[in-house]
Amino acid sequence: MYKGVNASEGIGIGTVMVAVDPDLSFEPHAVSDPAAEKERYQAALAVFCEKTQAQADHMREAVGEAESEIMLGHIMLAQDPGMTDQITSMIEGGTCAEQALAETSGMFENMFLSMDDEMFRLRAADIADIRTGILAELLGKEVIDLSVLPKDTVIAVHDLTPSMTATIDKAHVAGIVTETGGRTSHSAIIARALEIPAVLSIPNICSELSGGMTCIVDGTHGHVIADPDAAVLQDYTERARKLAEEKASLGAFRGKETLTQDGVKKIAGANIGSPADVDAALANDAEAIGLFRSEFLFMDAKELPSEEEQFQAYRSVASSLKGAPVIIRTLDVGGDKAIPYLNMQEEENPFMGYRAVRYCLDNADQYKVQLRALLRASAFGDVKIMVPLVTCVEEIRAVKDLVEVCKEELRAEGVSFNEDIEVGIMMETPAAANIADLLACESDFFSIGTNDLTGYTMAADRGNDRVGYLYSWYYPSVLRSIKFIIESGVEAGIMVGMCGEAAADPLLVPLLIAWGMEEFSMSAPSILRTRKTISLWSVADAKKLADEALACATAGEVKAVLEAAAR
Amino acid sequence: MYKGVNASEGIGIGTVMVAVDPDLSFEPHAVSDPAAEKERYQAALAVFCEKTQAQADHMREAVGEAESEIMLGHIMLAQDPGMTDQITSMIEGGTCAEQALAETSGMFENMFLSMDDEMFRLRAADIADIRTGILAELLGKEVIDLSVLPKDTVIAVHDLTPSMTATIDKAHVAGIVTETGGRTSHSAIIARALEIPAVLSIPNICSELSGGMTCIVDGTHGHVIADPDAAVLQDYTERARKLAEEKASLGAFRGKETLTQDGVKKIAGANIGSPADVDAALANDAEAIGLFRSEFLFMDAKELPSEEEQFQAYRSVASSLKGAPVIIRTLDVGGDKAIPYLNMQEEENPFMGYRAVRYCLDNADQYKVQLRALLRASAFGDVKIMVPLVTCVEEIRAVKDLVEVCKEELRAEGVSFNEDIEVGIMMETPAAANIADLLACESDFFSIGTNDLTGYTMAADRGNDRVGYLYSWYYPSVLRSIKFIIESGVEAGIMVGMCGEAAADPLLVPLLIAWGMEEFSMSAPSILRTRKTISLWSVADAKKLADEALACATAGEVKAVLEAAAR
Repeated sequence: MYKGVNASEGIGIGTVMVAVDPDLSFEPHAVSDPAAEKERYQAALAVFCEKTQAQADHMREAVGEAESEIMLGHIMLAQDPGMTDQITSMIEGGTCAEQALAETSGMFENMFLSMDDEMFRLRAADIADIRTGILAELLGKEVIDLSVLPKDTVIAVHDLTPSMTATIDKAHVAGIVTETGGRTSHSAIIARALEIPAVLSIPNICSELSGGMTCIVDGTHGHVIADPDAAVLQDYTERARKLAEEKASLGAFRGKETLTQDGVKKIAGANIGSPADVDAALANDAEAIGLFRSEFLFMDAKELPSEEEQFQAYRSVASSLKGAPVIIRTLDVGGDKAIPYLNMQEEENPFMGYRAVRYCLDNADQYKVQLRALLRASAFGDVKIMVPLVTCVEEIRAVKDLVEVCKEELRAEGVSFNEDIEVGIMMETPAAANIADLLACESDFFSIGTNDLTGYTMAADRGNDRVGYLYSWYYPSVLRSIKFIIESGVEAGIMVGMCGEAAADPLLVPLLIAWGMEEFSMSAPSILRTRKTISLWSVADAKKLADEALACATAGEVKAVLEAAAR
Repeated sequence: MYKGVNASEGIGIGTVMVAVDPDLSFEPHAVSDPAAEKERYQAALAVFCEKTQAQADHMREAVGEAESEIMLGHIMLAQDPGMTDQITSMIEGGTCAEQALAETSGMFENMFLSMDDEMFRLRAADIADIRTGILAELLGKEVIDLSVLPKDTVIAVHDLTPSMTATIDKAHVAGIVTETGGRTSHSAIIARALEIPAVLSIPNICSELSGGMTCIVDGTHGHVIADPDAAVLQDYTERARKLAEEKASLGAFRGKETLTQDGVKKIAGANIGSPADVDAALANDAEAIGLFRSEFLFMDAKELPSEEEQFQAYRSVASSLKGAPVIIRTLDVGGDKAIPYLNMQEEENPFMGYRAVRYCLDNADQYKVQLRALLRASAFGDVKIMVPLVTCVEEIRAVKDLVEVCKEELRAEGVSFNEDIEVGIMMETPAAANIADLLACESDFFSIGTNDLTGYTMAADRGNDRVGYLYSWYYPSVLRSIKFIIESGVEAGIMVGMCGEAAADPLLVPLLIAWGMEEFSMSAPSILRTRKTISLWSVADAKKLADEALACATAGEVKAVLEAAAR
C-alpha cells in the first residue's frame, strides 16, 4: 500500500496505465536564420493555442466553465508579451526556438516557484504545461493523450496537467495517481470536478506501478493498493458499491429545501475561493455562499486590485446567486497566506501575528477600497461583509465606522449600494468566543470559522503534525465555545452560520442543530450529504444528543457518543 | 531623550561617567620560546583567577550568593580544559599568548552566539568578559574599575560585565546606561539585584553622552534624558522622591501576613528561575514559591540533567522554603524556549506547536526522570508538581498516571517521598480556561499563567510589536477566562493562584480578590507592594469593582474603571 494526498474522494478500482511523458529533449544549436526560426516558433505557438482552444471548448461541455478557463488561461500565458518578447529576442540573438522557450519559461517558472504561495505554484505548473505543449509542437512529438482509454483505467502519471485532463476520457477513468501535487493543485481541482477518485504526491509511483496491474485508488483516505489480494479486492469492491449507493441516494435531496426532520428551515451554503467556483456551488445545489474568500483577487495579482476589479468580482458572484446571500470575507492576509507585494515582515508566530482585520485596520486606505467595492456590489445582490479574526468589540466597531465613511462617500458620489448591508464577524478566536454575547450586539451575523477557532483554542497549529492529535473540535473546550457563540447569536436574534470544515461533519451536525445554528456552509460536494444529515435529526433528538455529548470530559468520549448516535 | 530596555526599575539622577574599555589591541607575533610563552599565559590566567576570586568574595557580601557565583563561574570557564588545552596547543605551535587567547575564546564565543537561546548568549558574554580580563593581564592594562566613584554617578558603558559590577561602588551609582543587553542579560540581573535603575541597549549611548553631563535614568520606562532642562529635572526629582517614599512605606509590610482589608488570608509568593533566586525571594518576604521554572536545569546543561542533578536542585529550594509551598513547573520546552541538545524541529508557529506537556508526554522516559526527582524532593518540603500548557483532561490524567508509575517505582526502591504530593495545572490556554470546571476535578491546584493565556486568547504573540495593542488582560474576554478559572477552582475546593505578570498588577488585584484567588506569585521585588495593595481592598469592595469592570465592553473602559478605583 502507498500513502499519498487524498485529493478527490471515492474508491476507484481498475487496471493501471502508466502515462509516460514524451521525450522532449533536444540539442541546443545556433541559428543562422533567426527570421525563419522566429516563424517556426510562431507557427508552433499558433498550433498550440489552437489545440488548447479546442481542449477548452471540449472541457466546457465535459466538465465546466471554471475548468475550461484554466485552458484559456494557458493561451493567454503562452501569448503573454513578457514571455514571447523574451523568446523572440533570444532567437534574434541566434538561440534556437526550443532553447529560447526552455530558458525563458524556466525563468518564469522559477520566479513563480520561489514565491512561497500555493497560487504562484499553480502558475508555475501552468508554465511547465505550456512549455511541454509548445516544445512537443516544435519537436513534432505527441503529448500524453488520455482521450481514448480502456474501461476502468487507473492512470498513473508524474503530474496531471490541465492539458492532459482537458480531453480526458472521463467515463473510462477509475482513478488517478500522481507523483506530485497537493490538495489545491490543478490535478486535485480537476479530479474533484470530474468526481474521479485521486491520490496525489506518491514519490516514484509511476515506476512502482506497471501497466496492466490491478490497482485500488482510495481517494478518501489517500491510499493506493497495487495488486491487491482477493480479500482486499472484495472488501474495496463492496465499499465502492456502498459509496455509489449512498451517492445515488443523495440525488433525492437535489433541489429540495434544507430542513430538519421536524421541519426547521436551515441553509446549506458553499464556501468559494473565486467567482469561477460559483458554477460548482450552484451545480451542487448551494442555497447561499457562506464564505467567499476574497484573497484570490489579491494573490492572483501583482499589485493591489483596484476598486473596479474587486467590484466586478463581487458583483459577478452576487448576480449569479440571484438574491441569495453572499457572505464575502474581507482580506484575510497574513498567517499562512502571504501576498508578496504587500511586503509583510516575517513573524515568529504568524498565526498570532499581524493578519486579517489587524492588517486591514492598520491600512485603512487599502481597506476602504475593498469596503467600497463590496458596498457597490451590494446593489446587485444580497452581499454581506464578514470580518475575519475579530478579537474585541473595538475592532468590529472600527470596521463599521469605516463602512459608514465609505457609505457617506458613495452617497456623495451618487453611487448606489444596499443601505442595510450586513456586517458580520467570522468567529474564530477564543477571545471572540468568550465575548460572543457582547459581539452579537455589534454584529449583524456570525459565521463560525471552526478551523482557526479549534487551533487557537487548543493552542495547536493545524499544519503541525506533531500536535495534530490536539486539533479536533470534539474536545469539550471547543464544543463549549461553538455552543456559546451559537446561543449568543440566537439570543441576540442574529443569523449564526459556520463556514469551517466542521459544518460538513455529519457527527457534529446534530449538535449544531441543537444549539440553533441556521446556516451550514462547506465545500460544494458536501452540500447534498449534509442536507441529508440535517433531514435525519429533529431538534428534540439533537438536543438530547448534545446534552449527552457535553456531559463528556474527553474528546474520545464525545466522539464515541456521537458515533453511536450517527444517522 | 533616548529609549532603551527598562532593565531595572526606579529613577536615578546624577552626573555621567563614560566608562571606556581599555585598549586591548595587540600585534600578533610568532613566538620563539613556546615554553616561556605558555608560562606567561599561565601567570596571567592565575592573576586573573585570583582577582576574580577576590571580586566574588566582595560580591557575596555586597550583593548576594547568586551574583557571586557568576564570578566563580568565570574562574571555572577560564580554567576549562577545553579552552586552555586549545590555547596551550596554539602557543606550542608558535602563536603568541594574546592571539591564542583571542582566537580560542572567539571560537567559543561564536559557538555560543550561534545558538539561538538567551542562556547561551549569556555564556558568550561570560567568555568575552574573561578574554578582556586575561588580555588586560597579558598586556599590563587596567580593566574598567568602578570600585571608587563620585556620589550620584550615572555610568554609561558599552556593556556592564559581571567583573565590572563585582566591585562596583553601589552606594554612589545613581543609574546605569548601556549600549547592549536585554532584560535577562547579566547587566540587567545585577542592576536589579543592586536595585540600581538601569536602561540597556541604547545604540551608541556612550558617544551620545559625555562625562559631567547631568542625566536622568528612568529604569521603569526605559528612558534616558541627557542634560534635562530645569522643569524636567524638577519633575523627575519629585517622582524619584515619591518612589523613595513609597518604597519606605512598603517596609511596614515586611514580615507581615498577606491579608485583605477585611482579613482574608492570601499568599504572596515569588516566581524563580533557579535555586540561586531563592535568596532574593526570601529577602523580599516571599511566603511561597508560586512558580519555579525548571528550564534552567536543562538550558544550562549540555545534555539532559540526571535525576540526581534535578533532585538536588529541587531539594535545595524545598529545604530553603522550610515547609512553605514550592510549586515546580515541569519542563516547559518549545515555544520561545529552545534546548539545543533536544534537537527539536523548527516550527511555523512554535507557540502553537510541540512544547511543554506535549513534548513531555511524547518523551515519557525523559519526563519520568523529572517526575522521580520531584517526588524525591517532596520528602524535603512542600513540593507541588505543576504541568504547563494543559489543554484537555486527557493530558492531566496521563501525567497523573506517570506520577503514579514513578511512585510505585520509588516505593519498590524504598525511596521516601510525599505520598500526597499535589499535581496541579498551569492554566494558560483558552481550552483549559473553557473547561476549568472539568479540570478542577482532575487537579489539586490551579495556577493561572496570564502571559500565555492572554496571548492565546487574543491570538496575539506577546513578542510581536505589531499586535502589541491586543496583548492586554484588560480585554473582557481575558478577564472572563480568569474569572471562570478562579471560580471553578474555588467551587471545587482547590487552591487557585496566579504566576503570570498580572498577579502583581495593582489594577487587577481587586478583581482577583473578588473572584476568590488565594495565591499571588510574582517577581520578588513586587511582593511587598502587592501585599500592600491586597491590604487596601475588602472582598465586598473588590466584588463591587469587579461587577463594574465586567459590565464594560472594551479594554479601554475596563482600564478606566480600574484606574478610577485604584488604591
